[in-house]
Amino acid sequence: MNRRVTLVEVAPRDGFQPIGPFIPSEEKVAFITQANAAGLHRIELGSFVNPKAVPQMADTGEVLRRTAALPRLDAQVLVPNARGVADALAAGARHLVYVISASDAHNRSNVRRDTAVSIAEYGAVLQTLPAGIAIRLNVATTFDCPFDGRMDAGLVLERLAQMLAFRPDVEVGLCDTTGRAEPEQVGSLVRECLRRWGGTTRFAFHGHDTYGLGLANVSAAWQAGLECFDAAFGGLGGCPFAPGATGNVATEDVVWMFQRMGVETGVDLQELLGLATRAAALPGASPGGRVRTALASATRCA
Amino acid sequence: MNRRVTLVEVAPRDGFQPIGPFIPSEEKVAFITQANAAGLHRIELGSFVNPKAVPQMADTGEVLRRTAALPRLDAQVLVPNARGVADALAAGARHLVYVISASDAHNRSNVRRDTAVSIAEYGAVLQTLPAGIAIRLNVATTFDCPFDGRMDAGLVLERLAQMLAFRPDVEVGLCDTTGRAEPEQVGSLVRECLRRWGGTTRFAFHGHDTYGLGLANVSAAWQAGLECFDAAFGGLGGCPFAPGATGNVATEDVVWMFQRMGVETGVDLQELLGLATRAAALPGASPGGRVRTALASATRCA
Repeated sequence: MNRRVTLVEVAPRDGFQPIGPFIPSEEKVAFITQANAAGLHRIELGSFVNPKAVPQMADTGEVLRRTAALPRLDAQVLVPNARGVADALAAGARHLVYVISASDAHNRSNVRRDTAVSIAEYGAVLQTLPAGIAIRLNVATTFDCPFDGRMDAGLVLERLAQMLAFRPDVEVGLCDTTGRAEPEQVGSLVRECLRRWGGTTRFAFHGHDTYGLGLANVSAAWQAGLECFDAAFGGLGGCPFAPGATGNVATEDVVWMFQRMGVETGVDLQELLGLATRAAALPGASPGGRVRTALASATRCA
Repeated sequence: MNRRVTLVEVAPRDGFQPIGPFIPSEEKVAFITQANAAGLHRIELGSFVNPKAVPQMADTGEVLRRTAALPRLDAQVLVPNARGVADALAAGARHLVYVISASDAHNRSNVRRDTAVSIAEYGAVLQTLPAGIAIRLNVATTFDCPFDGRMDAGLVLERLAQMLAFRPDVEVGLCDTTGRAEPEQVGSLVRECLRRWGGTTRFAFHGHDTYGLGLANVSAAWQAGLECFDAAFGGLGGCPFAPGATGNVATEDVVWMFQRMGVETGVDLQELLGLATRAAALPGASPGGRVRTALASATRCA
């Protein structure tokens, strides 16, 4: 198991996107600046999607520009299609998170086309991509789909093989979109992915804590050999197209767990807790996670 | 890994004990009756402790008598010392949970004596015990102590060896009293316990979800070979002598996780959810767990 892990902070994208009241760009920039200062140098800071569908992400270009000079920041932005890629590159993005759902039903709900069509489009996009653009390929509904239920691992691996045939040297995010993955399933799929493609492809786990399995799944993925995990400060999150799927696993919970395990994250937990507490208080937010409140009450009782 | 597990419902003891307003005996009996009907046949329904220290448990004898005729119910009661054992036996208890803390500081806080003194007293108690009385030996602060911090595994194993030398054919509860155990620590200790004593002693895991690690630790203990787990409906719980240690792992979360994993618990989740929802609404309760609220919001969105 890896004694040093990388956390990708996704609250500015996955955490903020379901929040109704628009968070001013300045406030988004402040959160990103503080997260970076706390040691979270990989941050998914927005998405280039239809602003009518996800209005909270309409200022991603602005946020990207205003955080460009932050030291050590590796800023990634989510793109669901060729148009999003073009918009992201025009705005100066150097690290793209291309999202495709393993399940046709979720992909149709998300981007109105079958998974196979999205995979072909992804292949075409790669051919026109300028040099030096890093790719995270997020495979949504890797374990479970809000419409189709538990995913067949064979189908997921087949679709992954199609995506990786275009270009194997990417980072793949195995995304538990609904929070209904369970640790045995996560461990088993991670081991199989590493066995097949571990030599050339980097894998990451993106989990939600909707059913309380957030840390159990992160732990299972880590045990199976992963060293890169998505998380959102304050446990913010949710997918606007996955009913009931609220709450990314909280970054502070993940940091706390790894600290207890003696695994290095590079994150300053105290700074992160301050940030998470402010994020949890955002109007319209549905915060999650346990460590924030547990440490607050422990302090009160001590 | 075991494809069939046993859950021990501890809410009527560990979950109710920190609740201030007295829950009438009739209501306790109703909860126990419903839990038993939902398939939770092992229930820790109270404790024989000083009623001045834990007033909520003052009616355990009454509760024990009024649930004695429930079909298939295996009722266990917690006892911290020889006097508790005498009181429990006088009230008709047949299954005792003898609790000793691995940490001296916690044992002193709990029962005002060093661990070695409690171990010796436990040995003496065993000699006078009538035949046919089942013993669960709960080792509190197995992983972490609210006063001394992370426990040394060597010390815990040494004290376990002293306890098991008196009588190895008991069930040992490895208790994460503070909720600060982490999955690697749990897995490692469970494997060592099974390696040393697995042939004669049964082991169970008792976890708290204070820091969000409840299911991660249950899952790790299961992966390491355990098949018996304590949990509390509604995620009620806490230890009055462990500051900040609120919330047993929720029975409904554990059942939900094992269902997703295809592991049989024998529990009817729907009945359990109704029960958990009522328990979460008890005046003075601090409920926990995620599945109860996740399923409720999924139903609202569907």
